[in-house]
Amino acid sequence: MDRKDFLVKTAVCGAAWAVAASPLKLFGAPAPAAKAKSPELKLSFQEGIAPGDSLEAKLDFMENLGIQGLEPGGGGLASRVSDLTAKLSGRNIKISAICAGFSGFLLAEDAAVRKQCIDSMTEILAAAGELGAAGVILVPAFNSQKPVLPHTPETRAFLVEELHELGEIAAKYHTTVILEPLNRREAHYLRQVADAASLCRDAQSAGMACMGDFWHMTAEETSDYGAFFSGGPYLKHVHVASRRNRIMPGEDGEADNYIDGFRALKAMNYDGYVSFECGTRGNRAETVTAAVNLLRKQWAEAKA
Amino acid sequence: MDRKDFLVKTAVCGAAWAVAASPLKLFGAPAPAAKAKSPELKLSFQEGIAPGDSLEAKLDFMENLGIQGLEPGGGGLASRVSDLTAKLSGRNIKISAICAGFSGFLLAEDAAVRKQCIDSMTEILAAAGELGAAGVILVPAFNSQKPVLPHTPETRAFLVEELHELGEIAAKYHTTVILEPLNRREAHYLRQVADAASLCRDAQSAGMACMGDFWHMTAEETSDYGAFFSGGPYLKHVHVASRRNRIMPGEDGEADNYIDGFRALKAMNYDGYVSFECGTRGNRAETVTAAVNLLRKQWAEAKA
Repeated sequence: MDRKDFLVKTAVCGAAWAVAASPLKLFGAPAPAAKAKSPELKLSFQEGIAPGDSLEAKLDFMENLGIQGLEPGGGGLASRVSDLTAKLSGRNIKISAICAGFSGFLLAEDAAVRKQCIDSMTEILAAAGELGAAGVILVPAFNSQKPVLPHTPETRAFLVEELHELGEIAAKYHTTVILEPLNRREAHYLRQVADAASLCRDAQSAGMACMGDFWHMTAEETSDYGAFFSGGPYLKHVHVASRRNRIMPGEDGEADNYIDGFRALKAMNYDGYVSFECGTRGNRAETVTAAVNLLRKQWAEAKA
Repeated sequence: MDRKDFLVKTAVCGAAWAVAASPLKLFGAPAPAAKAKSPELKLSFQEGIAPGDSLEAKLDFMENLGIQGLEPGGGGLASRVSDLTAKLSGRNIKISAICAGFSGFLLAEDAAVRKQCIDSMTEILAAAGELGAAGVILVPAFNSQKPVLPHTPETRAFLVEELHELGEIAAKYHTTVILEPLNRREAHYLRQVADAASLCRDAQSAGMACMGDFWHMTAEETSDYGAFFSGGPYLKHVHVASRRNRIMPGEDGEADNYIDGFRALKAMNYDGYVSFECGTRGNRAETVTAAVNLLRKQWAEAKA
């Protein structure tokens, strides 16, 4: 990492704390009141979820189940825009979000690896914007990505600057960068929705957003309800899986309870998607259908 | 740090993730429903808050205002137990919590400095138990405390083991260790209530608790409401101050809005204290009285 560049960036964002503490927009005003609302549960699938040998077959299956969103991977997305657009044309399915697909990482010690991340994200963001996606999912550093900058206040301030830059690019393409907290085994750096939201707030860009993934939240959050409320206006996407083995919701039996989180999403009038990212141990057509029914039942039961 | 000791401790708590993710006690069951409850607002003062030349004079002032808690510092607490007990006898004021006062720190590289923390906390916890305090406030590492263990997954696992040990000592004395998240300028390691609660959960000790301080929360949380809900059953104490300059609530004008946080405390049926930790720029008797009135007004306005 270029020391001078680091110091300049640190100085630039040295005021982040003061700025964050000053307008108090989010603190002075009460959060969305927990009154009864009835937003719709919009479900989305990653490309591997539905059974079928082709994307068309998968989309037929999804449409038949009333699934409204598709979450493709970000790898090579630019070259898929016209094909995806054609295949979704005339269907009641939209692109929900784009799952990663970038190279490099934002917290790399090596400036070239950081630039790789910004450059590849920029390309995916452009395609995401064309596809009308809510955003492109980003993880600042997986545990496996090294060498990584040390987890210090200076690194956080530096990350906030990088996120501002990326968020502005996203906003230009009318989409967002969606920070995803993962469990500690995958990404120690960012584990909780509240921390992701805090990074979004500090980055001060309309193009920065965050998400929660019930699978990771099982290990890292003490309250699904509290976590989503902390996501607040930055929360633009949700992932779902079973809570013990990351398979289809319902395949882990009673552990697969999402009601507490759904209560928050309803109270917040969340209008994004809840998107499947998981495997299965059963017959795919059956476990996927059962999972969709389970989530709809729990959504209906959840009292905002 | 003794490498062997570190590895042993890491191995011991290597199962923490699996354990945390497995019983799902906090996830399967819905959080306290956000229905209307009317817990009382119990206010507490640190020793420097009330005007008065003696503790008796301060306690008279507090009693006159209906303040129900006193939060003394932990320094030399053992030698003050009988005096504090005598001075509170016959009054409607109890010891709320004990503010720090320990030496050393838990995340020190040097094992002797870590032991200093455990030993001094043990002494304070014993006195806190005698005084009936909800707990003793602890910060794992202030930014100024060095050399510190690196912020890595291994260090977090090690901290969880230390907190288990300390929590068990606290439970033996019928009190708790209360983890306090601070703002990034004071303590980068632990900044958010959700993270403190997650440490409590992982520590698996009935003697581990956490708190939220509106002052630090102003800078670090995107939602007072979400933060307190994430504290959930671990939340045993709350600090309050004005939100711009850490003076008396109300001295910073409209910025001093606590309603969103109070809504959560009411919905959670929080039965701990809201304790003043702040300075003043005005006439102490006047600003303290105005602050108490403001908090009571906002508590009444807050709809669970």
